[in-house]
Amino acid sequence: MYEKLYQGDTRMASRLMRDIEEGLPAARAEMKKLYPATGKARIIGITGSPGAGKSTLCDCLISYYRASGRKVGVVAIDPSSPFSGGAILGDRIRMGRHADDEGVFIRSLATRGHTGGLSRAAGDVSAIMEAWGAEIIIVETVGAGQSEVDVRRLATTSIVVLTPGMGDEVQAIKAGIMEIADIFVINKADREGAERAMNDIRGVLELLPDIGPQVWRPQILKTVAFKNEGIEELGRVLDEHHVFMLEGGAFLVRARERSELQLLDLLHECVQLRIDGVLENKLDPQWRDKLASRQIDPYTLTESILAGILKDNNG
Amino acid sequence: MYEKLYQGDTRMASRLMRDIEEGLPAARAEMKKLYPATGKARIIGITGSPGAGKSTLCDCLISYYRASGRKVGVVAIDPSSPFSGGAILGDRIRMGRHADDEGVFIRSLATRGHTGGLSRAAGDVSAIMEAWGAEIIIVETVGAGQSEVDVRRLATTSIVVLTPGMGDEVQAIKAGIMEIADIFVINKADREGAERAMNDIRGVLELLPDIGPQVWRPQILKTVAFKNEGIEELGRVLDEHHVFMLEGGAFLVRARERSELQLLDLLHECVQLRIDGVLENKLDPQWRDKLASRQIDPYTLTESILAGILKDNNG
Repeated sequence: MYEKLYQGDTRMASRLMRDIEEGLPAARAEMKKLYPATGKARIIGITGSPGAGKSTLCDCLISYYRASGRKVGVVAIDPSSPFSGGAILGDRIRMGRHADDEGVFIRSLATRGHTGGLSRAAGDVSAIMEAWGAEIIIVETVGAGQSEVDVRRLATTSIVVLTPGMGDEVQAIKAGIMEIADIFVINKADREGAERAMNDIRGVLELLPDIGPQVWRPQILKTVAFKNEGIEELGRVLDEHHVFMLEGGAFLVRARERSELQLLDLLHECVQLRIDGVLENKLDPQWRDKLASRQIDPYTLTESILAGILKDNNG
Repeated sequence: MYEKLYQGDTRMASRLMRDIEEGLPAARAEMKKLYPATGKARIIGITGSPGAGKSTLCDCLISYYRASGRKVGVVAIDPSSPFSGGAILGDRIRMGRHADDEGVFIRSLATRGHTGGLSRAAGDVSAIMEAWGAEIIIVETVGAGQSEVDVRRLATTSIVVLTPGMGDEVQAIKAGIMEIADIFVINKADREGAERAMNDIRGVLELLPDIGPQVWRPQILKTVAFKNEGIEELGRVLDEHHVFMLEGGAFLVRARERSELQLLDLLHECVQLRIDGVLENKLDPQWRDKLASRQIDPYTLTESILAGILKDNNG
């Protein structure tokens, strides 16, 4: 049914993404079918506050990879991203200079509400993009919150984008929020404070334990994305990290972790659907009223609902 | 076992919080017991970026409410908060001028990792604080991410703290991230740009549909928390909102939503424990290897695991 996907048909890829979101059995069967051949694409995560210039940087990287003929997929999760903003225009958002490029596939997941579901959806979408032919998949997120951290775990290389004068954000780095960055990019580096930002990050990185050459030491780069400055260098360091990941076996480890993450997401999503079904069909409206009037408490109600859906044995 | 809790014993409250986290059956029984009498406390959510001055504002509000003799609980979720930072010092963190005040109970949840679990824990902690005697409970969060949004849904009044010169954050407001604020506080309002920040927010608020007097129109206030400026006015608007919530019946609606949220959190947490148990005990290590080598896909594996733990009927 979805054969044309494997010939690079973008409409068919969009359709499969939509069908899997809607839970169509045929789409699920297709995901099982395409799964064994996926897991080889490079997934580049781009994280940063709104306004840091993630989307412009993403745009530059698309051009960079397209120049060498590679097909690129973009998964946009930041609700303030122009990529996401285009979601209202349809399934496949084409923006700016990549609008007519059949080798670029952009998909926004910004409108999805539920936790967990977000990383599951991002995992499905990137697998489909890979089946469609993408060698490079860029995942753009704001990077805050647990679901975003889960999404970032999809990436084989993580970029954190900062701007000069972001004292508060260095605080966040110190708090460990950005600890999984492989590359720090100081974007808008023509502004005052770029050197200081670099030194601030360098200072934080120096606190990391030195475990030896088998461990990637995060790199710090400067870009001015809207002038396309620093992109070649970023591309070079991205390649360097990719080679590092492949040589050390970390790429396979990441692919493995990604599959396990996806398994957990799927499990929780399926169980959630079952729970929602129980709450809607069977208990409502009694339980709502009893809870509201505090005749029953959530702890007791949880026990009775679980007794109804879970098997008694320990799995 | 926990009787002294109801006489305002802080050690006993801490103990129940710890016991419920560890899943002790006696603690769970106590939660069922204390539940009917809770749901009346005012829960004030304070949200804002790291560095906005949430903790200082929180500190001012503690003093404000203590001056009228009311007992105050604080649930700190921001990992960069000094309240949270104290978590390593023990269960009950006493900071600054409230260190020796038996009428203030501070609990940090910042070190908890899992989504969902955070709002469940915050719900449990605030119920215990209420049983302990707290009339006011302040929940401090960074406010980003789904789990934090869930936590904010606990609040009966939500404050979003901003600072002058936060252009990017107004972008976030526009993107709907802060749409549930009842009160906007421009803290550090003695800095340049406070007026502009007020106007920016006012501009965003004007875009809200005007539904009439039964709907609360978000207020915008200026404070300089470290000088204790603007706190009386904030206290007055907090009271105003509380009265509004009580009179319009919204307070009860919020309490009802809170119970339902807690029920869902408990359900998911229990199911997650069951899933984790299955993955650890039964399928590991085969499933890990098969997933890694792509001999099995997450979709198929999900189906087989669920078949093992869920009853066949539809609940």
